[in-house]
Amino acid sequence: MRPVAVIGVGMTKFGEHWNEGFRDLVIKAGLRAIEDANIHGEEIQAGYVGTMASGRLVGQEHIGALLADHMGLTPIPITRVEGACASGGLAFRQGYMAVASGMHDIVVVGGVEKMTDLDVAEVSDILGGAGDQEWELFLGATFPGLYAMMARRHMYEYKTTAEMLASVAVKNHKNGAKNKYAQYQNEITIDQVLKSKMIADPLKVFDCSPITDGAAAVVLAPLDIAKKYCEQPIEIIASAQASDHIALHSRASLSELYATKVAAKHAFEQAKLTTKDIDVAEVHDCFTIAEIMAIEDLGFYKKGEGGKATLDGKTALDSEIAVNTSGGLKACGHPVGATGVKQICEITKHPVNMEKNSRKI
Amino acid sequence: MRPVAVIGVGMTKFGEHWNEGFRDLVIKAGLRAIEDANIHGEEIQAGYVGTMASGRLVGQEHIGALLADHMGLTPIPITRVEGACASGGLAFRQGYMAVASGMHDIVVVGGVEKMTDLDVAEVSDILGGAGDQEWELFLGATFPGLYAMMARRHMYEYKTTAEMLASVAVKNHKNGAKNKYAQYQNEITIDQVLKSKMIADPLKVFDCSPITDGAAAVVLAPLDIAKKYCEQPIEIIASAQASDHIALHSRASLSELYATKVAAKHAFEQAKLTTKDIDVAEVHDCFTIAEIMAIEDLGFYKKGEGGKATLDGKTALDSEIAVNTSGGLKACGHPVGATGVKQICEITKHPVNMEKNSRKI
Repeated sequence: MRPVAVIGVGMTKFGEHWNEGFRDLVIKAGLRAIEDANIHGEEIQAGYVGTMASGRLVGQEHIGALLADHMGLTPIPITRVEGACASGGLAFRQGYMAVASGMHDIVVVGGVEKMTDLDVAEVSDILGGAGDQEWELFLGATFPGLYAMMARRHMYEYKTTAEMLASVAVKNHKNGAKNKYAQYQNEITIDQVLKSKMIADPLKVFDCSPITDGAAAVVLAPLDIAKKYCEQPIEIIASAQASDHIALHSRASLSELYATKVAAKHAFEQAKLTTKDIDVAEVHDCFTIAEIMAIEDLGFYKKGEGGKATLDGKTALDSEIAVNTSGGLKACGHPVGATGVKQICEITKHPVNMEKNSRKI
Repeated sequence: MRPVAVIGVGMTKFGEHWNEGFRDLVIKAGLRAIEDANIHGEEIQAGYVGTMASGRLVGQEHIGALLADHMGLTPIPITRVEGACASGGLAFRQGYMAVASGMHDIVVVGGVEKMTDLDVAEVSDILGGAGDQEWELFLGATFPGLYAMMARRHMYEYKTTAEMLASVAVKNHKNGAKNKYAQYQNEITIDQVLKSKMIADPLKVFDCSPITDGAAAVVLAPLDIAKKYCEQPIEIIASAQASDHIALHSRASLSELYATKVAAKHAFEQAKLTTKDIDVAEVHDCFTIAEIMAIEDLGFYKKGEGGKATLDGKTALDSEIAVNTSGGLKACGHPVGATGVKQICEITKHPVNMEKNSRKI
C-alpha cells in the first residue's frame, strides 16, 4: 500500500443549528476542506461519509448519492459508512484504504449528524441503536446507563472517584473554551460537575457529552503528490480497527475497552512507535469514564490510573500528552457521525503537527 | 492492486421470515458462505456488511459490531456500508478493496435486510429515504411513483409498451421458479401482469419487486491463495461505482440511468471487455422498467430497445445474454441490503462460471 496524507480539513461549528439542515452542514464542511486543500472539485475521485443514524434522525439514507449530488460531484462514487460513534473514523479509514490501494488519488471524507431536531428521549432511543437493541435497549438500557455501569465497576476496581471523572469534563471544557468550533466554550469547575443533575449514577449531566449538530471533512491524497497541494501534508502512518462484544453483558470486563486495546496494539505496530512517542491524542469521551478507559487502554497510563492522571493534570494542554485538545466530545460536542472526522481535523491542525510534521494515529 | 477472488458464497431463502430475526438471517448466510469457502472463522481478517435501513426497520445500527459479536469473530473489524439499494454491492466493493490493497487477506462480505415486520406503508416511507427526502418523499413521491415517471417517459420516447414491461416480470418469475432461494417460485403470464392491480400508472403490482427478508454473504481472498480453498475461485476482474443526481427532477434524462452508464464504462475498461463478452448479468429490477433501462445503459441493447429485446426473449435463460437468472429482485425478492451480495452469489454459481471459470462484473 502506498503512503497517504491529509491535505486539507474543514468543519462547521458544532452546536444547535436551527437554520441549517443535514445537507447544509456536511456541504459546508466539505467545501471548507476542499478550499483548505487547494484542490478543485474536478480533482476529487471518490468520497466517503460517516453518519450513524440519518435515517431515523432526518429520514434520509443514501447519503453518498445525496452528497455527490449536492456538492456537484456527480458522477464520482461516494459511499456512506456506519459504525455508531465510530462512523466518522471508519469513513476516514475507508478513504485511507481507497487511496492507499491505488484505487483513487484524491478522496474526500466527511462526517455529519443532525440531532437537535428531535427531543432528547427520541435521540437517546436512536443512539441506543448503537448497542444491542434486542438485549439492551429493549430492556431499558440506554447509553448513559451502560456507561454508568462501566464507571461503577471502574470505581470499584480501581478506586476511581467522582472527582476524577469530573476532572475529565473540567479539562475538556477548558480546551473547548479555546476552540471556536466547540459547542461549549465555557470553563466549568469540579464543584459544578459534582453538583450537576444526576443522569445515571455515578454520571451527572456534566459527565455526559451533549446532543449536537455538526459536520467535518478531510481531503486525502497519495503522499507523493500531496506536496503539490499543501506545504505540510500530514502522513497517516497507521490505521487500525477492532471490535468487541456489542452487548456489555457479554464483555470479559466492564472496566476495559478491549477493542481499543487491540486496535492500539495494531496501530503502534504499524507505526513502529510506542506510547512514549505520542504528544497529543483525540479520544472518545462520550462520557467522562470513556476518556479514562481510553487513555488506559491506549496504553498512555496503567490500568486504573487514568482517573488520577487526569485529576493531576497529566492530560492537560501543556502536559506531556495532551488529550482532547479540541474539547473532546464533552465540550466540542458530539454530532455522532462527524466526531471521528473532527478528531482528524483537530489533530492535523495541532501545533505539534504544524511544527514537526509529526504523527497521528 | 492485487487480484481478488470469490471463494465462497451463501444465502438464506428470500421471503417472509417470521421466526428469524435480522441477526439470525445474516449469521446464517455468513456461516453458509464460510462453509462453502472451506475456511475456519479464525482465518477471517475483516468484514463488511451492507444494510440500508436497519435503524428504522429493526431499531439496530452498528451492524458491524453486532455481526462480529454474534458470529464469534471479535476482535476483527467489520464495517457497515450503506448506499440504499446498492448497499450490498458497495459492501462487496469495500471488501474487494480491502483485499486488493493488501490490508486484509480473507474478508467476508454480507448483506441483509429484515423488512416484513412493519406494514407496507411504513416500509414504503423508509425506502423513500433512498431518494431525496426533502424534495421528493416529503412531497409524496415514493419509489413506485418515481419509477412510474421513468416508465412513462421511456414509453413516450421509445414506444415501450406495458407488454414489454410485463415481459420482464414474466421472465424473472420463470427464472425464480427454478431458484430454491427465491421468494416467488411460481411462473406468471403477461396477461396476469397486465390485469394486476395498478400501483402507480403504468406500473402494476407485478411490475414491482416485493418486500422481503433475507441475507447473503460471500468470502473473498487474494487470487494467489484462493486455490488453497476452492477448486474454482472466481476472479473479480472489474469493480466500478458511480453516482447521479439523487432527485429525479435534477437528472438530465428520466429514461436513462446515467450512473449505470458511467460505472459500466469504467468496468468494461478495467476488464478490457465489451458487452459482446458478457454471457450472464444480474441487474437491478426493483421495477420492470429498471431492468429495461439497466440492460440499455449497460450497453447490452441500444437505448430504447431493451423492452422489445426482453419481449422477444433475448434476455431469457437460454439466450445470448441471460439477465437475472436468479429471478431478479422481482421474483427472488429484494431484501435491500442483501440484494447486491445475492447477485454476486448467483453469478459466481452460474454454470458459465463453473464451466469456464469465466467473468463477472
